[in-house]
Amino acid sequence: MTTTPRVLEIRQKVLSKNDELARGLRDRLHAHGVFTLNFVSSPGTGKTRLLEETLGRLVARGVKPAALVGDLATDNDAQRLMRSGVPVRQITTAGRCHLEAEMIATHLEGWDLGQFDILFIENVGNLVCPSSYDLGEDLRVVMLSVTEGEDKPLKYPSLFNSADLAVITKLDLAEACETDMAAMHQNLQAIRPGIRVFETSAKTGAGMDEWIAFLVEQQRIRPAAPEATAE
Amino acid sequence: MTTTPRVLEIRQKVLSKNDELARGLRDRLHAHGVFTLNFVSSPGTGKTRLLEETLGRLVARGVKPAALVGDLATDNDAQRLMRSGVPVRQITTAGRCHLEAEMIATHLEGWDLGQFDILFIENVGNLVCPSSYDLGEDLRVVMLSVTEGEDKPLKYPSLFNSADLAVITKLDLAEACETDMAAMHQNLQAIRPGIRVFETSAKTGAGMDEWIAFLVEQQRIRPAAPEATAE
Repeated sequence: MTTTPRVLEIRQKVLSKNDELARGLRDRLHAHGVFTLNFVSSPGTGKTRLLEETLGRLVARGVKPAALVGDLATDNDAQRLMRSGVPVRQITTAGRCHLEAEMIATHLEGWDLGQFDILFIENVGNLVCPSSYDLGEDLRVVMLSVTEGEDKPLKYPSLFNSADLAVITKLDLAEACETDMAAMHQNLQAIRPGIRVFETSAKTGAGMDEWIAFLVEQQRIRPAAPEATAE
Repeated sequence: MTTTPRVLEIRQKVLSKNDELARGLRDRLHAHGVFTLNFVSSPGTGKTRLLEETLGRLVARGVKPAALVGDLATDNDAQRLMRSGVPVRQITTAGRCHLEAEMIATHLEGWDLGQFDILFIENVGNLVCPSSYDLGEDLRVVMLSVTEGEDKPLKYPSLFNSADLAVITKLDLAEACETDMAAMHQNLQAIRPGIRVFETSAKTGAGMDEWIAFLVEQQRIRPAAPEATAE
């Protein structure tokens, strides 16, 4: 299309602006000692279900989490997560296919970040577009359900390649889906060599202890909050 | 972001250009008597698996199908579909999150459209961005797997609302996933009142007879090919 170079130019500007905002956001979160994760996956991978289970278990371990949940429409996910008693806010993107740093900044307003140890951001379900948008997170976590097929990392390389960590979900369905787990791991490593992978089932609890231990350890070694002048 | 109105303006131009191309494409396909479907869904819903089964069954019924398959990377899906002996071409989008009418036109080049009764276009797995791009199809078919959760129509309304038809896939997993099928149907009807819904399992063959009968009937009642001057 003749407009493509123009679109690319504008897109670059949007992305640069987002990166700048994301850097500021990360500094601000670090200043308050908040460790931040950005969950990305297909729709229906089970981000909310895993997060429900994760929030409850972290609270039981004395960790103070909060969550921002992105969706095109509805606040179903926030409603589900609020039952945990943890501070949760819904970001409704009104049709946009990804979250941006500015949406995160806006939705953190009024929260005392000093009260949180760990912030979860649940992105819009989309294996493509969120890859380009830094949200100020410390770790980008890509989730992949056993029901989705082993080849997703190969078919959506930009997102898998941009992730720091992978979580396989719905492990309890692997047998019914005849998922070839070895192939799934192989494909993850082919696209993102050395990536750490957790296998979980929020339903049966399989793999949850290891996942929670990782989060607890990570938020403990997060950047120390600087002096009160930081904000 | 300050650049947003500019982005929207450019986006409108891209969409108008796409719509124009799509209209031309639809006329051309109709001129050859080709009935065209655009399959949209999340990654991992089983578009390729359903298509594999569909192509084989259509050929057995004497219908002549062809397929275009979109992916960000790999030609895995085209390789799978080619085993059916049906003409198949892969469209690799090089990172783009959806197919556009121009990609369809380019990939039809060199094919004798008069040889086909029905063309399947398998879009990139994405429940958001493909909703804005007309590919010259007669019917847009949204697929939804029982593993993805009942609320997907509510959470991705723009795509479900733009669909002409819905196909529920992986019905064989509904029990293991404890899917509330009534809620899934209710949510589909809430977003797209009156939409026709097929329930299928490419694995067990459940619902496939009804789906194939529908396709055979639709391609029979497609616009009649005009005189030879049409192209």
